[in-house]
Amino acid sequence: MPETLTLYTAKLCPYAQRVEIALAETKLPFTRYEIDLGNKPDWFTPKVNAAGKIPAVAYGGPIVPPESPSPESQKIAESLVLLEFIADISGGALLPKDPVLRARVRLFIDVVSNKITPAVIGFAFQGKPVDDLWTAIEAIQPLILGKYAVGDEFTIADAALIPFIARGKIVLKYDIGKFEVGVGLKAYEILQTDPRFEKFRRYIADVEARDSFKNTFDEEYLKEWYTTRFARN
Amino acid sequence: MPETLTLYTAKLCPYAQRVEIALAETKLPFTRYEIDLGNKPDWFTPKVNAAGKIPAVAYGGPIVPPESPSPESQKIAESLVLLEFIADISGGALLPKDPVLRARVRLFIDVVSNKITPAVIGFAFQGKPVDDLWTAIEAIQPLILGKYAVGDEFTIADAALIPFIARGKIVLKYDIGKFEVGVGLKAYEILQTDPRFEKFRRYIADVEARDSFKNTFDEEYLKEWYTTRFARN
Repeated sequence: MPETLTLYTAKLCPYAQRVEIALAETKLPFTRYEIDLGNKPDWFTPKVNAAGKIPAVAYGGPIVPPESPSPESQKIAESLVLLEFIADISGGALLPKDPVLRARVRLFIDVVSNKITPAVIGFAFQGKPVDDLWTAIEAIQPLILGKYAVGDEFTIADAALIPFIARGKIVLKYDIGKFEVGVGLKAYEILQTDPRFEKFRRYIADVEARDSFKNTFDEEYLKEWYTTRFARN
Repeated sequence: MPETLTLYTAKLCPYAQRVEIALAETKLPFTRYEIDLGNKPDWFTPKVNAAGKIPAVAYGGPIVPPESPSPESQKIAESLVLLEFIADISGGALLPKDPVLRARVRLFIDVVSNKITPAVIGFAFQGKPVDDLWTAIEAIQPLILGKYAVGDEFTIADAALIPFIARGKIVLKYDIGKFEVGVGLKAYEILQTDPRFEKFRRYIADVEARDSFKNTFDEEYLKEWYTTRFARN
């Protein structure tokens, strides 16, 4: 019998969705516990993650309610560490066997961390130019080797990227980020039609078509949240 | 027979030493090629790493001189990607089998990347306070679980950390960094004697005692280089 696994997560958070996608792909049983980021329960930081952040996992130990994490379970945090962890406990899913392809997965994730993530956070929350996204996509597009990031099997590389692109698309499509009115819509048009991003768009469509993405992504909820966050008077 | 492996590296570079340590631990055969960072050979960027950076590996393909890398070999860069890659091709070295301990290795490396590395680069090159090192050590010290980072076996966590601490020690001991005269020496005294860092010191001594560290670290060469770099008139 596999060890118990409780995932502390939040629908809002792209880092957390990475882990939800990975778990959905492996079909490992787990308990999902939604943390209200605006009103974190008192027990969470002392008992689950001293850094106070989600995603976080409690693994192993006795079966307990998520609200009473056992001191005997292992607590693991950081989304990229958790992606590797889930691949490790899955018995062969989410990472190829070939060491060179495994390295390609990790190089892809490195570009996600250093280019894609800062670009999306930049235009959504920090008033940075949307054009940074084009540079980031041009950096990652040549690394796409097949239907998915490193070939025809879905890996943690795909799980690491998609939550940021999916949220970036909402921000642009509904024109609700830290930019002037109209800037988002215009960028969304470029993202959806510019011939230079065709390979990237096809790849994103394939990832978004998977149940592991669809079942962990609530567009209406996110749209609401961004709209409230960036309410223009 | 294992695939051929050529490592493009430089004695100066802490990121490259990580990979040299990992290779030394596995005893995998490889060709070491020193890149003169001040005068990079013309063929390096087009044929090995488009980003122009070391460490970089050429793996597989025909046996060729390092100066003429084959288009048939796989080119892999980024020190942390290479650490995982070397663990993957080593057949079981450098990473524990237990998935929870593997996660501990990666969490340790996360703190190296986000706390230790910026602290050392900060006081050595950017004029930032040496005190940032104390905060970084206090963040990583509780994560040390045994003789080495996650227990009694040496892992990629240890290989990821030590090149930065070893270089930081040279900068402080010889008082040659981007700080006022005397600041380095005083900090070195704290690092070597303050009771709150005792566990960290013991751990560092154990890592530095390994052949894989000693044979890839040239203190005199580094001292010379830092002295020239920070020559005070």
